[in-house]
Amino acid sequence: MDFGAIIKVLGYLLLIEAGLMMPSLLVALYYDSSDKTGILTSILITLVVGFVMSRVSKYKDQDIQGKEGLAIVGFGWILVSVFGALPFVLSGAIPSWVDAFFETVSGFTTTGASIVDNIESFPKGVLFWRSFTHWIGGMGILVFTVAILPMLGLGGFLVYKIESPGPMAERIVPRVRDTAKILYTIYTVITIIQVILLVLGGMPLYDSILHTFGTVGTGGFGIKSNSIGYYKSTYIHLVIGTFMIMCGTNFSLYYSIIKGKWRDVIRDQELRQYLGIILVSVLLIAIDIYESMNYNNFGLALRDSYFQVGSIITTTGYATVDFDKWPTFSKLILFALMFIGGCAGSTAGGMKNIRILILIKAIRREFYKMLHPRAIIPIKVNDRSISSDTVIGTSAFFMLYILIFILGTIVISLDGVDFESSTTAVAATLGNIGPAFGVAGPARNYSQFSNMSKLFMCGFMLLGRLELFTLIIMFNPRIWKSEIFTKHR
Amino acid sequence: MDFGAIIKVLGYLLLIEAGLMMPSLLVALYYDSSDKTGILTSILITLVVGFVMSRVSKYKDQDIQGKEGLAIVGFGWILVSVFGALPFVLSGAIPSWVDAFFETVSGFTTTGASIVDNIESFPKGVLFWRSFTHWIGGMGILVFTVAILPMLGLGGFLVYKIESPGPMAERIVPRVRDTAKILYTIYTVITIIQVILLVLGGMPLYDSILHTFGTVGTGGFGIKSNSIGYYKSTYIHLVIGTFMIMCGTNFSLYYSIIKGKWRDVIRDQELRQYLGIILVSVLLIAIDIYESMNYNNFGLALRDSYFQVGSIITTTGYATVDFDKWPTFSKLILFALMFIGGCAGSTAGGMKNIRILILIKAIRREFYKMLHPRAIIPIKVNDRSISSDTVIGTSAFFMLYILIFILGTIVISLDGVDFESSTTAVAATLGNIGPAFGVAGPARNYSQFSNMSKLFMCGFMLLGRLELFTLIIMFNPRIWKSEIFTKHR
Repeated sequence: MDFGAIIKVLGYLLLIEAGLMMPSLLVALYYDSSDKTGILTSILITLVVGFVMSRVSKYKDQDIQGKEGLAIVGFGWILVSVFGALPFVLSGAIPSWVDAFFETVSGFTTTGASIVDNIESFPKGVLFWRSFTHWIGGMGILVFTVAILPMLGLGGFLVYKIESPGPMAERIVPRVRDTAKILYTIYTVITIIQVILLVLGGMPLYDSILHTFGTVGTGGFGIKSNSIGYYKSTYIHLVIGTFMIMCGTNFSLYYSIIKGKWRDVIRDQELRQYLGIILVSVLLIAIDIYESMNYNNFGLALRDSYFQVGSIITTTGYATVDFDKWPTFSKLILFALMFIGGCAGSTAGGMKNIRILILIKAIRREFYKMLHPRAIIPIKVNDRSISSDTVIGTSAFFMLYILIFILGTIVISLDGVDFESSTTAVAATLGNIGPAFGVAGPARNYSQFSNMSKLFMCGFMLLGRLELFTLIIMFNPRIWKSEIFTKHR
Repeated sequence: MDFGAIIKVLGYLLLIEAGLMMPSLLVALYYDSSDKTGILTSILITLVVGFVMSRVSKYKDQDIQGKEGLAIVGFGWILVSVFGALPFVLSGAIPSWVDAFFETVSGFTTTGASIVDNIESFPKGVLFWRSFTHWIGGMGILVFTVAILPMLGLGGFLVYKIESPGPMAERIVPRVRDTAKILYTIYTVITIIQVILLVLGGMPLYDSILHTFGTVGTGGFGIKSNSIGYYKSTYIHLVIGTFMIMCGTNFSLYYSIIKGKWRDVIRDQELRQYLGIILVSVLLIAIDIYESMNYNNFGLALRDSYFQVGSIITTTGYATVDFDKWPTFSKLILFALMFIGGCAGSTAGGMKNIRILILIKAIRREFYKMLHPRAIIPIKVNDRSISSDTVIGTSAFFMLYILIFILGTIVISLDGVDFESSTTAVAATLGNIGPAFGVAGPARNYSQFSNMSKLFMCGFMLLGRLELFTLIIMFNPRIWKSEIFTKHR
């Protein structure tokens, strides 16, 4: 293990994070809010530690190998979360370290699970930082690093691959730095468009920016105690709802659109499944809540269902209504969506539609093989064959996800919460959604859990964001001891 | 599709079922209970229909092929359940057809989910029949047919393979008829031993026989309103608990013991995992209930935990206490056990330990591959390599199981039951356990669900018992139309 390389890259990562804290300081200065000093101190601490780490190492621009790539991504995420918690603690907005760490992990992983009770009295600088972590984490802080740091070289693709969601991360252009830049450009353009649309809908600029961060990063941190439900305008619901769904799709499809390859977009099987699931869920829930809740007209039920389905499947977690009060039928559909999540290469969490698609195709093949035992049938997605290894890898991911969900639920239940609260809270943190049902429902928050549970949930959020394997392998002592696998590559 | 062959075999199956109803008639006559005429009429109807079906067909002892094998098993199970419901309805014990069908499916699939409110006033003949369906279904009614009917010939292995639980059904001796006979002999010997042990423990003979049927078939139909909790004797709890666990193991291991191959038994990885999970679960739950319920000593907590863990992982469903009142931590462990189930080649339901074992090995291989990307590592169970196809088939099973669980839960929730009740009721029927939490908890039963839900649950029970694929493929119209695959074999 080349610790020098890891420390150096992590040092640069902290320098970048310090830079990313700057806008929050400017906001605090502009509003002259109470958190100015806290944010400034946080920036200075992060700068100094980052500077020391980037200088102390003897590493000289070698290429980063497998183990180092895993370590950089795994530790990188933990490190930026620890330093990202500084503004909350030092400004006094969130006095508890555990709570501040929870809130920051929730931000970077674009979960949006919160422990804040009094969000509307939060100082404006750290409130900006809180939402901005969604924006940074959405596309990936290491993808950002790859985009601006030339030093990662070939290792950049490795880091990019590890951080990007989905089973088969690909460069949309040959050079990974260019890929990262294109993705961030598309991301920025979408962000700007949504801010403009929200401002046009009458939302104040500050609120528009923060809600847009939460939308495009599919994070879900709100700035009002009843989330988007604060705004009564159907226009605002539709804008945010639609942008959530847009950001739950694979960003490489936007590049296809730019290149005029509409055919690729329309035929994309993952996109079709994703939109199909949304359509069916919206209709079923709209009918259910129209029948059982007090809706005057079906249009309103449809609007609320559209927003909530979009919010949950994209793992954003915004709410316009307290869906914890919906009938079990609608809640169970939302619960299932928590596991599915968005598309590969999006900012969304969950298992990703492509994996569900591959596994459903594997099921269909089993049926086919019962009728044609000797046939050899490849599993294809978008006309491309998927190797057995990828199918088994996808299955292993699915199984591991369920396993962590079950074990996690058992651990969290030690807090004495009920069956529904513990299962959904784990699903909502592991899937990076945010609000769950019961104790951590949309009208409540995660502050009632014990510190131990909160730390476990930080683990689930990071596991979900980094797609399980990367983080778990850090705990394997073999990765630290031997050099075997670096040599065997 | 050779309908002649199917109808003929199904006809013989009904004749066998009529024969299997005879002991219940003798019991009714012995006790001179009110259900004599009802049972006799049921036997006559079943006999006549079976006789007509077995004669009407032109089939002349050809070998049964793939499609026919599937159809025989799929329809066979539905048919014996329909005719098996006759004694309940005709005796007046269960007036509703849907309820009687539910109870019979629950019996044959060894689920043990009941809709009977007044079990202690049930007439003795049909009460015997109810428990006897567990015994018949446990080892498989078609395996029984294979054992006694020579006409199935080579097709017998196919039918045996389709009905036997687990991903890799194997003959323990070269001839499938001999295999079936050996299995039924072992099964009968275990049954007799348990009856003797229970009688020695002071349980009346009739009660002993019925509880043994429920135990060895891992079914769980009790004959007292509070299940095994009726008996206060620790001896009886331990006997039933231990025999449940014994019958959740692969029966071919008993054959290995007879043949003196102890090494194979001790080294069996599925058995080790199964016993390991039981050990850990028993300890965790014992500690949890000792801490939070009113137990005077840890021994009693250990006894109740042992019984309940054994009951749930083997998917039997007997209860000595109302575990629905246990803390969430213990309930969630039991909930997880519902999915795991027993071992392949046992009478238990659930996903089976071997599948979990294969998938966990697939997960471990993914970690290994992260460190050694170019290594080719086979997945091995008991020193034998598992093919990629089997691993993918196992994954497809796992995914399909979860999928049916989720969709099933959503459908059942339309009954207006809560989150916990709908999720666990589906898990408990699909996994062939029986009691769930909440509405269908151990102190209550399934009578509160709507007829529609009950019929869906009959589907889940059959899906679980026949391991999903067999039953679903019946709904594929292609299986009925073309002859392609029979020819392609």
